[in-house]
Amino acid sequence: MTYQAPVRDIMFAIEHLSQWPQVEALQPYSEIELDDARAALEEFGRFCAEMIAPLSTIGDTEGARLENGRVVLPEGYKAAYDQFVEMGWQSLSHPTEHGGMGLPKVVGAAATEIVNSADMSFGLCPLLTNGAIDALSITGSEAQKAFYLDKLITGRWSGTMNLTEPQAGSDLSRVRCKAVPQDDGTYAISGTKIFITFGEHDLSENIVHLVLARTPDAPEGVRGLSLFVVPKLLEGEGGETALRNTLGCVSLEHKLGVRASPTAVMEYNNATGYLVGEENSGLRYMFIMMTSARYAVGVQGVAIAERAYQHALSYARDRVQSRPVDGSAQDAVPIIQHPDVRRMLLRMRALTEGGRALAIATGGWLDLAEHGPEAVRAEAQSMAEFLVPLVKGFCTERAVEVASLGVQIHGGMGFIEETGVAQFYRDARILPIYEGTTAIQANDLLGRKVLRDGGRTARRFAEMIAATEGELSNGGAAAQRIAQRLAEARLAFTASLDHLLATAGQDPNRAYAGSVPFLMLTGNLATGWQLGLSALAAEAELAKGGDAEFLQAKIATADIFAQQVLVECAAEHSRITDTGDSLLTATL
Amino acid sequence: MTYQAPVRDIMFAIEHLSQWPQVEALQPYSEIELDDARAALEEFGRFCAEMIAPLSTIGDTEGARLENGRVVLPEGYKAAYDQFVEMGWQSLSHPTEHGGMGLPKVVGAAATEIVNSADMSFGLCPLLTNGAIDALSITGSEAQKAFYLDKLITGRWSGTMNLTEPQAGSDLSRVRCKAVPQDDGTYAISGTKIFITFGEHDLSENIVHLVLARTPDAPEGVRGLSLFVVPKLLEGEGGETALRNTLGCVSLEHKLGVRASPTAVMEYNNATGYLVGEENSGLRYMFIMMTSARYAVGVQGVAIAERAYQHALSYARDRVQSRPVDGSAQDAVPIIQHPDVRRMLLRMRALTEGGRALAIATGGWLDLAEHGPEAVRAEAQSMAEFLVPLVKGFCTERAVEVASLGVQIHGGMGFIEETGVAQFYRDARILPIYEGTTAIQANDLLGRKVLRDGGRTARRFAEMIAATEGELSNGGAAAQRIAQRLAEARLAFTASLDHLLATAGQDPNRAYAGSVPFLMLTGNLATGWQLGLSALAAEAELAKGGDAEFLQAKIATADIFAQQVLVECAAEHSRITDTGDSLLTATL
Repeated sequence: MTYQAPVRDIMFAIEHLSQWPQVEALQPYSEIELDDARAALEEFGRFCAEMIAPLSTIGDTEGARLENGRVVLPEGYKAAYDQFVEMGWQSLSHPTEHGGMGLPKVVGAAATEIVNSADMSFGLCPLLTNGAIDALSITGSEAQKAFYLDKLITGRWSGTMNLTEPQAGSDLSRVRCKAVPQDDGTYAISGTKIFITFGEHDLSENIVHLVLARTPDAPEGVRGLSLFVVPKLLEGEGGETALRNTLGCVSLEHKLGVRASPTAVMEYNNATGYLVGEENSGLRYMFIMMTSARYAVGVQGVAIAERAYQHALSYARDRVQSRPVDGSAQDAVPIIQHPDVRRMLLRMRALTEGGRALAIATGGWLDLAEHGPEAVRAEAQSMAEFLVPLVKGFCTERAVEVASLGVQIHGGMGFIEETGVAQFYRDARILPIYEGTTAIQANDLLGRKVLRDGGRTARRFAEMIAATEGELSNGGAAAQRIAQRLAEARLAFTASLDHLLATAGQDPNRAYAGSVPFLMLTGNLATGWQLGLSALAAEAELAKGGDAEFLQAKIATADIFAQQVLVECAAEHSRITDTGDSLLTATL
Repeated sequence: MTYQAPVRDIMFAIEHLSQWPQVEALQPYSEIELDDARAALEEFGRFCAEMIAPLSTIGDTEGARLENGRVVLPEGYKAAYDQFVEMGWQSLSHPTEHGGMGLPKVVGAAATEIVNSADMSFGLCPLLTNGAIDALSITGSEAQKAFYLDKLITGRWSGTMNLTEPQAGSDLSRVRCKAVPQDDGTYAISGTKIFITFGEHDLSENIVHLVLARTPDAPEGVRGLSLFVVPKLLEGEGGETALRNTLGCVSLEHKLGVRASPTAVMEYNNATGYLVGEENSGLRYMFIMMTSARYAVGVQGVAIAERAYQHALSYARDRVQSRPVDGSAQDAVPIIQHPDVRRMLLRMRALTEGGRALAIATGGWLDLAEHGPEAVRAEAQSMAEFLVPLVKGFCTERAVEVASLGVQIHGGMGFIEETGVAQFYRDARILPIYEGTTAIQANDLLGRKVLRDGGRTARRFAEMIAATEGELSNGGAAAQRIAQRLAEARLAFTASLDHLLATAGQDPNRAYAGSVPFLMLTGNLATGWQLGLSALAAEAELAKGGDAEFLQAKIATADIFAQQVLVECAAEHSRITDTGDSLLTATL
């Protein structure tokens, strides 16, 4: 089971789809050039291929174990993490003033893809640490930033998010965890949190838990949530972190996948916590952080898809079985020559490169939203916020599909665990669930990103796509076919949008019964659009005498996405606008 | 994890979709009435719910184990199997002259659904035994029938199919297993067979292996395959079966799912085998048997879907989370009230009941094909052969989707193994692979069932659907909506058919690149058609004063299938007719 980081594909997407010229002109990135990003990703790719990817099988087999309150990771994880820290990879896209490498977020996203392709269980630890860094960067006090950020950015300390409780999953209004103010300004945190990824482990020196809890007089519901930072080890008198806080992991979940990633039930028993920002503002802070956390999970979808694709491609080249259907050989041939195996592989590739294109484009907008000049920032922010539920929702649903196709290409061998592809099918299945299920993403898209501004951002999105169609229709034969499919999908989108804007107020059940179809339609369209831009870029590079095989493959992938995947938009449109009363009224 | 056999739904399908009046009039079933079928399925449903369903968790956790050449099944399997044999369930749909209960095949299919819902691992043993019974009934000598059939039909002996070898999966031309004739008329069988379901176990008294092998002078390729019966225990001089044949299980696979079902690597070392039928006719016999084996696997797809649906429905009723989107309650409600959870549950139901409708209809044709009067038989045979790859291909692909939706409805709990739904997601994944992958079914549909008769059966199928549309368009509002969707899907089908008939000869790669989309389109249409007939039957029963809640749910399910699933046919049509050159020529 080997993995090679697809740095060339990634760099093509960064160069042509992330609005790179604007991104590299941003003040914090003024000294960064495309070659710096490439060099960093190539080195990181080598590291992940050599040090992380070989762990995924043993990680899956052994799993994380709880032994006397300590969580032990499978063999090799600690050594690999130590090297990850030593080489400074956690710091890749964090600011230089806290010791980071200072690369743009979009390059950080590419690194997130690579490490999660190598092993999603391993990748979850830095992913959660990034979440804690973002949270404290945005909402922490100066003292908190000074104390925590450097340590987290090195990776010596790791981070977690503690939201879920047994009765409070998607519904944070039901959070019961308590935070009682103490005389010294700290809070005593008590309660049980579940599904805490890397809640306890032996990789990092300390674990910084970010915990949602309620102060005694807090209002009910989501308006009474406050955010606390609750470290595993507290600072001693001499500044050393030595004192064990009164919190711990009481059990680990036995999961379908990502088994080396410890999913902890955490018990807080009057643990010392520090308020982050203001009381009762926890939900608002969560929403700020959620954008980047959800984005990162969407990138994990691309990561698993890439890994599954590489595995299936390699198997299809080697496995010899049956004569070709066109009679071109008398003997059995490698199965990659059979039309349906080609169809499956190319569908996997179209979904994988498509997901990457969407994620990288969104990454560029996230950078512009954070650091762009005033005129750009608001528009970039609204585009990024519109696209993030698509990256999360669409790319993760498609990751499950791609992983399943990967199993199918392996035939009977795919069902045997030692082959390794069943693991991707198992690992991928959490992606449309955690950090907000697909339905939650769809509610976010429809409620907050479409209805709230009366469809303004959605229409701008459609206009940008129409402009791309115009460019494509002046291109080659494939580009013209893509333009046609994009136009059909865009019209399905705008018709669905009109319907939802008209319906949501008076008949919310009908509108929201179409919310996931709307998310899938919009994600599909956004992906097809970015692949259309990718095809245009490839045409331009071809005209300049670029590598024909590489560039023609880029055009073919976009074409295949348009013919095989974009055509699904019509069915989604029909589901949204023609829900039918049966769906709303049938007895269940 | 409880399971209740949906006997009322099954009986509705048998009564209205299997052409029951013609089936019960068939000579071997002349003493059978609908109430006999109902009574048998109700009793079998109770047995499976009480004795088999509780095994599935322990079966999955423990798995089958190989201990010193013996295969040991998880605790409880042996006791349950003994009771299964004692109650005579193996004999349900086998002829009375060999000790069977003599119920029609379509009732046997319903029983196959029930036992596989309860536990697919357990269900595989009787399923393979049924395959061996069919094989020997059709191709065995009178002496072989006399010797084996009664023992297999009681279930005291079980059966296996030995086709696959490491280099010969889908491609049986590569089978190398040897059969050398001996002076006493037997054959010495030598070779390695892999993926042998229930190849070795401790449930039955003896195991009857059906083995594909080559005699020394046999031609190369599939024309040199012969079929042998190779029992685990040979008859001793006194007629007792005591002598161990020289064959055995050398290892078991470590699988993604159906872990209690032992998947054996079998070693034959000059084992005594008996030729079945004629030499070099093995492939032809295999094709005869394949129809029922593939049909049974399609029914397993319905079975897993039903189990996943029951589990998700029960969870969605209990789990309280978030306020309703229409503001109808101030507090959190059971998630079944949220529009997207409803959508997912109703989609699961539509796919499950749809799959059952298709399977039961096909079962009726299988009965008519076997025992019908001369005038009926040929037409029934060609319909059954046309529909079987759809039952296998479409119902199993949809089973994976339904199982995945079942995980999604459980949110984070779905990813925890103890919840039990991840097992369905794992178990289901083998279904589109074994007994011929979906691509193999699609090749069979396109090559043997459509091109070979120049589309005659396919056009007859379309005409029958058009007739149903006519009836539906005289029905209620839902029936009229269904008629509309059916007509759209039928036109997509006939257009695809015309294209494939025109293309396959000159450009087979293009035609076969559309074979799986064609299978999915045709399966979708066939399912929507049967659900349309189900809606018509429900309307008629309603008019006679039948149970309104039950019958209206039947109409709603058909309506939801039409609005949510049938609409996918347009994308498949586009994939088939508009493949695009990129799919055929892109560098991989």
